[in-house]
Amino acid sequence: MTVWRTDGVTSETVPIDDRGFQYGDGLFETIAVRRGVPRYLDAHLRRLAAGIARLGMPRAPESALADEVTSLAAGYDFGVAKIIITRGSGPRGYRAPAAPVPRRMVGIVASEPAPRQHYERGIELRLCRTRISTNPATAGFKTLGRLDQVLARSEWDDPQIAEGLMLDAEGCIVSGTMSNFFFVRDECLCTPSLASAGVAGIMRATVMEQARDIGIAVRETRVHCNDLRDDDELFVTNSQIGIWPVGRFRDRSREPGAVTRSLMRRLAAAGVEECRP
Amino acid sequence: MTVWRTDGVTSETVPIDDRGFQYGDGLFETIAVRRGVPRYLDAHLRRLAAGIARLGMPRAPESALADEVTSLAAGYDFGVAKIIITRGSGPRGYRAPAAPVPRRMVGIVASEPAPRQHYERGIELRLCRTRISTNPATAGFKTLGRLDQVLARSEWDDPQIAEGLMLDAEGCIVSGTMSNFFFVRDECLCTPSLASAGVAGIMRATVMEQARDIGIAVRETRVHCNDLRDDDELFVTNSQIGIWPVGRFRDRSREPGAVTRSLMRRLAAAGVEECRP
Repeated sequence: MTVWRTDGVTSETVPIDDRGFQYGDGLFETIAVRRGVPRYLDAHLRRLAAGIARLGMPRAPESALADEVTSLAAGYDFGVAKIIITRGSGPRGYRAPAAPVPRRMVGIVASEPAPRQHYERGIELRLCRTRISTNPATAGFKTLGRLDQVLARSEWDDPQIAEGLMLDAEGCIVSGTMSNFFFVRDECLCTPSLASAGVAGIMRATVMEQARDIGIAVRETRVHCNDLRDDDELFVTNSQIGIWPVGRFRDRSREPGAVTRSLMRRLAAAGVEECRP
Repeated sequence: MTVWRTDGVTSETVPIDDRGFQYGDGLFETIAVRRGVPRYLDAHLRRLAAGIARLGMPRAPESALADEVTSLAAGYDFGVAKIIITRGSGPRGYRAPAAPVPRRMVGIVASEPAPRQHYERGIELRLCRTRISTNPATAGFKTLGRLDQVLARSEWDDPQIAEGLMLDAEGCIVSGTMSNFFFVRDECLCTPSLASAGVAGIMRATVMEQARDIGIAVRETRVHCNDLRDDDELFVTNSQIGIWPVGRFRDRSREPGAVTRSLMRRLAAAGVEECRP
């Protein structure tokens, strides 16, 4: 990131004894910044707070965090803000200090909109070999340990492939490497359950809410990769991109579908401008 | 740790953009130091190299690393050395840089021998509620993401409980939070398979080798926690402790068994002095 602040002070480093570095003992959020404003900031802070509670860490100073992200974002027309919260420094060993002093880092970097054709014709989605770890204890949260995603993302170099789909050990779909996955079948919007893996994406929740608002049934489900059908509409979501329809998957081209397009129009109207037709 | 060196230079911090911190994209080793010498250093470096290959990172400078650990260890009668290797700094996103420049950190801290009664009467072992993530892609390696172990270790405060046993989602035993687990039944030494979770401990391998040397059959197996029997000998191992017999588990006291004691004598003779009778 171009600029980082640690506990409110401009900083480029973190102590080696930080438990986030030593053990992945922390969480992060990645927030889209548009025209100087962090998008869905409240929702990101709520998810962060839920993760902090799950990890048994002291509450984050939420209003200070919000102020900090907002003030950093002000100078950026199109960018990405990142929050990292760790359990702070500690002695050697997995056991957390009795009174941990969490460390917070906020960073920001300018970014570019994704190519228009990702929205118009849809992306090519790869099926990754690397499976995703399953653990109900941390499923849904954006914990620091992302090695599965790193290994999956290292499987391809082809710039034509925008995202990779990750399965659990049984071959059931969990998510993209950096996105949530949806399919539309029989007028119903379906997305993998997050009971044992995956991240509860802010854009995922937004899309589900938009779908319900226009009378589309929404189902969280467990689906084997081989059970996707040729006439399912497929798309992926994340905070930075909104919705990308899947235009190609497993050697088959697909047209962005009608429900997908409706949801993209709804998102665009709700402020996710990248999704405008 | 008392002293850290990063790429050979004394240092207390790591760049925030290090992928080890951002994504858990790295590995570590924890090496016992006794009378100024790092124990089983070659075996640790071999495991590290295997993990580096699995992660697709450039090879570590093994002889420089060995020299560094050895020279840091020289001043410590009883201590712990830690090596951390990350994929180095990179831009935002899971995708690794095309030409990553790994970062290596070596730290050392003085420590204390565990209480004698851990060896003589055995430890109390807790059964943890937190399950361990499973993923064949990284099973066996000591990757930086240790949040499962952190959460499991946070389940108890009682200083009488020295270790916690972790199960996978199906209730099968994987390991302790910081140790490998063994049980002895019908003159056979059994330990959980590492096919989908757990760390291939250096002391685990040493104990298995010692067992074979004295004609004890060794089996890697998948065992449900409820299938442990009252007359099984139980013990845990790691590089720092050697062997700790389990003296109490699930409300039942146990005497350290004959095979466990034989293996402790063997280890002590092989240089793991803590295990001497």
